[in-house]
Amino acid sequence: MIDTILQHKSIRKYKSKSIDDKILNNILEAATKASTTGNMQVYSIVVSKDETIKERLWESHFKQDMVKQAPVVLTFCADFNRFNKWCKQRNAEPGYDNFLSFYTASIDALLAAQNAAIAAEDNNLGICYLGTTTYMAKSIIEILELPNGVVPVTTLVLGYPDESPDLTDRLPLEGIVHNEKYSDYSVDDINRIYNEKESLSQTKELIEINKTENLAQIFTDKRYTKKDNIHFSNEFLNIIKEQGFMNNSD
Amino acid sequence: MIDTILQHKSIRKYKSKSIDDKILNNILEAATKASTTGNMQVYSIVVSKDETIKERLWESHFKQDMVKQAPVVLTFCADFNRFNKWCKQRNAEPGYDNFLSFYTASIDALLAAQNAAIAAEDNNLGICYLGTTTYMAKSIIEILELPNGVVPVTTLVLGYPDESPDLTDRLPLEGIVHNEKYSDYSVDDINRIYNEKESLSQTKELIEINKTENLAQIFTDKRYTKKDNIHFSNEFLNIIKEQGFMNNSD
Repeated sequence: MIDTILQHKSIRKYKSKSIDDKILNNILEAATKASTTGNMQVYSIVVSKDETIKERLWESHFKQDMVKQAPVVLTFCADFNRFNKWCKQRNAEPGYDNFLSFYTASIDALLAAQNAAIAAEDNNLGICYLGTTTYMAKSIIEILELPNGVVPVTTLVLGYPDESPDLTDRLPLEGIVHNEKYSDYSVDDINRIYNEKESLSQTKELIEINKTENLAQIFTDKRYTKKDNIHFSNEFLNIIKEQGFMNNSD
Repeated sequence: MIDTILQHKSIRKYKSKSIDDKILNNILEAATKASTTGNMQVYSIVVSKDETIKERLWESHFKQDMVKQAPVVLTFCADFNRFNKWCKQRNAEPGYDNFLSFYTASIDALLAAQNAAIAAEDNNLGICYLGTTTYMAKSIIEILELPNGVVPVTTLVLGYPDESPDLTDRLPLEGIVHNEKYSDYSVDDINRIYNEKESLSQTKELIEINKTENLAQIFTDKRYTKKDNIHFSNEFLNIIKEQGFMNNSD
């Protein structure tokens, strides 16, 4: 078990082999066993296998080929729609059209997603998360016909790996973990924590390809720029509002 | 592995027995293997064992006894502070003071948390998530001395179980999973999906204790009220802003 977790690597190339329904059900079952706030289960999982739908999702997800290649795409959504409908049918007035409820539902969706990811890997499948889900929430809502009260928060592609990448590097544990309280980082701390990552041969290759001074600039100037972040922040905040989660006053 | 996931139950009573450092390290190591956006690892984990700090956290977390009982409390934080410091030391200008970056960092923190939860359970420990983390983010920030760029998003308590509850009920898979696209729920769908949960003997007991007409009203009128949700929505949005994540324009 721990081995499945410790051996995790994101897979970006998939074989065309489909996933057996029994295995897929096992993965979805595992997803629903994750902790959920007050056992409300305020999330949904949309399972897309259809080529036409996957093609449209591929377009939304910045045309990353793995979305078309992988036989199954799971879109995890924060979902108060089902819960609200249940409340209204039971003469109970739901008050879940606010930011806290959206964030609570996001937590539910993300814990379920990680259970699905581990269950998939334990079944010898490869997985990859798509961070583009929040950037492109508007078009994903259209494609998957998500109603009011539902926002896509992350996507997993699943399939049989057609590549065998090395384990991804991680910062040393001391870079992530704080004892008792948060101990802020000195200049030396930062240098030490990032030293291994900066020394990797693939880091040096990346810097050459991207023509930057160093790895940090690849992030700030190429991959996750301020301009894009501001643009997608406003898009995503609009979506949260449009889907009915920003009524934060009486 | 799958068994660990399928057998998950939240534990709310703990023995005083401490957790071996080797096991705790194994759990933290597992946490850092979770997928993370662009391998930025924009989260931190604060490990609190000290009785005085746990007592203060217990006060923040609505005085839930398990916070004092459990030997270890893990606070998972969205954290761009470390990454920003690294960028600035490398002549790279970070643009991560916006809502999208906060949400991205939240995803990182939550996937890591779920890895930790599963790794803990696989080591025969019990776990429980504390949803009060977002409600009480301000006081947790004070207690754990979280700097700008860091927001607590969830908390796990870990320890050896001193109770053996039944598995928690879950909605049937068809209540959570949608095929290809979202299929919205009819009145009959809602009745069918919630039928098992509403028929449980513990549901009937809860209704009697709470003096409500049904289970849904326990949620709307007692546990997660509109008034509280609005209050905590505004508190949490303020915290996100105060910690430097709401600069969404140029």
